[in-house]
Amino acid sequence: MSAAIDEFVHAHEERLLEELKALLRIPSVSTLPEHKGDVQRAAQFVADQLRAAGLENVEIIATERHPLVYADWLHAKGKPTVLCYGHYDVQPADPLEEWHTPPFDPVVRDGKIFARGSADDKGQMYTHIKAVEALKAVHGTMPINLKFLIEGEEEVGGLSITKYVEEHADRLNADVALVSDTSMYAPGLPTLNVGLRGLVYMEVEATGPSRDLHSGVYGGAAPNPLFGLIQLLNTVKNKKGRIKVDGFYDDVVSPSKAELESWAKLPFDARAFRRDEVGSKRLTGERNHTVLERVWSRPTFEVHGIAGGFTAPGSKTVIPAKATAKVSFRLVPDQDPEDIIEAFREHIEDHTPKGIQVELRVLGASPGVMVKTDHPAIQVAAKAMEDIFGKPTVFTRSGGSIPIVGDFAKFLGIPTILMGFGLPDDGLHSPNEKYDLGNYYKGIMTVAHFFEQYGDAV
Amino acid sequence: MSAAIDEFVHAHEERLLEELKALLRIPSVSTLPEHKGDVQRAAQFVADQLRAAGLENVEIIATERHPLVYADWLHAKGKPTVLCYGHYDVQPADPLEEWHTPPFDPVVRDGKIFARGSADDKGQMYTHIKAVEALKAVHGTMPINLKFLIEGEEEVGGLSITKYVEEHADRLNADVALVSDTSMYAPGLPTLNVGLRGLVYMEVEATGPSRDLHSGVYGGAAPNPLFGLIQLLNTVKNKKGRIKVDGFYDDVVSPSKAELESWAKLPFDARAFRRDEVGSKRLTGERNHTVLERVWSRPTFEVHGIAGGFTAPGSKTVIPAKATAKVSFRLVPDQDPEDIIEAFREHIEDHTPKGIQVELRVLGASPGVMVKTDHPAIQVAAKAMEDIFGKPTVFTRSGGSIPIVGDFAKFLGIPTILMGFGLPDDGLHSPNEKYDLGNYYKGIMTVAHFFEQYGDAV
Repeated sequence: MSAAIDEFVHAHEERLLEELKALLRIPSVSTLPEHKGDVQRAAQFVADQLRAAGLENVEIIATERHPLVYADWLHAKGKPTVLCYGHYDVQPADPLEEWHTPPFDPVVRDGKIFARGSADDKGQMYTHIKAVEALKAVHGTMPINLKFLIEGEEEVGGLSITKYVEEHADRLNADVALVSDTSMYAPGLPTLNVGLRGLVYMEVEATGPSRDLHSGVYGGAAPNPLFGLIQLLNTVKNKKGRIKVDGFYDDVVSPSKAELESWAKLPFDARAFRRDEVGSKRLTGERNHTVLERVWSRPTFEVHGIAGGFTAPGSKTVIPAKATAKVSFRLVPDQDPEDIIEAFREHIEDHTPKGIQVELRVLGASPGVMVKTDHPAIQVAAKAMEDIFGKPTVFTRSGGSIPIVGDFAKFLGIPTILMGFGLPDDGLHSPNEKYDLGNYYKGIMTVAHFFEQYGDAV
Repeated sequence: MSAAIDEFVHAHEERLLEELKALLRIPSVSTLPEHKGDVQRAAQFVADQLRAAGLENVEIIATERHPLVYADWLHAKGKPTVLCYGHYDVQPADPLEEWHTPPFDPVVRDGKIFARGSADDKGQMYTHIKAVEALKAVHGTMPINLKFLIEGEEEVGGLSITKYVEEHADRLNADVALVSDTSMYAPGLPTLNVGLRGLVYMEVEATGPSRDLHSGVYGGAAPNPLFGLIQLLNTVKNKKGRIKVDGFYDDVVSPSKAELESWAKLPFDARAFRRDEVGSKRLTGERNHTVLERVWSRPTFEVHGIAGGFTAPGSKTVIPAKATAKVSFRLVPDQDPEDIIEAFREHIEDHTPKGIQVELRVLGASPGVMVKTDHPAIQVAAKAMEDIFGKPTVFTRSGGSIPIVGDFAKFLGIPTILMGFGLPDDGLHSPNEKYDLGNYYKGIMTVAHFFEQYGDAV
């Protein structure tokens, strides 16, 4: 059966490329109000493609911001159900002058298609739709039950989909979710991402004097909220990268010995990582953990920016009345975001310098997520990838967060397969974003094989 | 002789007020390019008034930005020379909606004249010119030699006058400078300011990664220059307000016992200072020093602002490539700014966290200044104030810096008498700035008496 799918994809490469180009030409930039119509147009395009692929009950669902697109095919009795997720919105394209060819005029060079959204996530999301189309064309039916939920707000926070998933858990009920919005660990190396860090993002606001003060007149006796914030934030993490909030590490589950051993086998050049990716003179953090552990399975504390006082060119001798820091913790399994927030709140109470008051505002909180590698769907997905790419699939984690994965776990109680066909150098959110065409075609085959084999496996 | 001066001032109060109003009507806002013509017009007005008062060699001196006005009268052979300084430029008037009457339409209410620049510094600067006029009218001559140097850039940094003073030390040569650009310690309390803190203002720039990084992908292994800056700045001052830079206090000269005793006698309500001026829940700083000591005679370290990373509304999980803090030290006699900069540079080298690089940029450096209270001119000035205001003159200091005082000391080798007729609630740089008319008239008398008595004293 699988060979027929592969032949179909090869035979239709040109059309599959042209149809992807048509989607990439729609500048569906979700954050810019002037592109609202384009976002709507992209939703319609996706809905039309879902219908053309053979899916049913296609629906464009209006939300407070940008529409969701739903579709399903539910006639494989006794077979499992996969919920396919992707997003059709894209990041802004600026700085435009750094693009070699226009961001919404897709061009193929060197076996790669260059356009905003090519990898993130239009090209990868399309992989799922085209896999359905191939199965329908080859077999006239589907080997499993399928639901699709495609959103248009991923690049702006995705609030509508979270609300929708929470409120329509019955409709979305499935055995597993499939998301292709990540990257392979290296070119040609099939990869399933089985762990994500969580995130608690907060604002820490310090206040002191009732108005901005002149540091000449009041300096020495008046509290400085900006310096108070420096003193407070300094207490959160020590020089060794260890977080000093009481109880912070209590629930951290370390990776298994087997997982650590598999990471040790991954091609990883710490020197190239430091020099070419980070671009710093040295790496920092917990020395008793490898670099991959530090970014995948260790929690962190970061300060992202501090507002308040004077930052324009020149000098102003102000003691600001207020200073606000943006900070975050990355969390790992099984740290509970609410527990961490509470522990941080207590830490602030215990460490706020005299003369200032501190208010904590939580802007977002999601836990870390792990998918068990012995889950049948993961096993089948790994095999499908191995079959197409010709190498054993590696299991990696990501240091970032993908909120929808947490939503699916929380509201639907299902794990998510993160089957990425992107590559580390695809330039997501950057000029000259690209998607490897070989991975596009192989992705379609892989997803179709996964559907076939997952249907057989149960 | 003095009584005749006082009679002249009383007899001409109305005209003296109208002439001040005419100057206050010129919106000579030095920082706003659209007011460049007004600044020029104010310079011309001042020049005309200097000439009318009886001064000679009146000259409007073009500079790279706004003109200086020079004048002199040098016929008192064997008598000392006083260099009178003031500025005719003003701060912007915004927020306009908070003014009860328009900022450049001077109005008298309750014995005070309300207008931008009324106290800072047009009204006070005018006091000197009108004292000359009174002396000339009453005696037909001057009791001492006089030089005037009035600038139009005080509110924008005053670079031109520093250059001029350095390059024209011979022309400006004098025994003492007289500046009326400060406040009396309290209403009705004659005050001479005999000490100013110095200032070293710097930018501390921390760099780490070669580009902004995603804290999910790199957090835990990549250095964060913003957190590095927090760690570094935290080491500069401890919780007790003590600066931890090696050698920082080596050259600090503490106030004499007599000076401290005189401060202890000043009316000072620490609770009202905290509540009504600072507006904080408590004061901070070195507990073994009084509040007045902390703001007048103790050096400080302040952070004024930190640029870098993300500070807009919402969340962005960035590890910034760069972060820059604006910081300053207030210095007291006899701390040398260059020594302090060097000590801070060494402190940075010793305390820069691993993985980041720090660059220090000095934006300005001036030493603290003290005038000896036993200087003959100070003694005469104190007596002149006491005669007019009917109370013993108090000697205070200011925690701020007045760069021109340092310039006069450095390039001319002369002390400066800071004889202020402003009041603490004049609202300098704020809406509804005002100047007490009683102080305006008494100021004219005081300055004239000072000139007379200083001529007699030598």
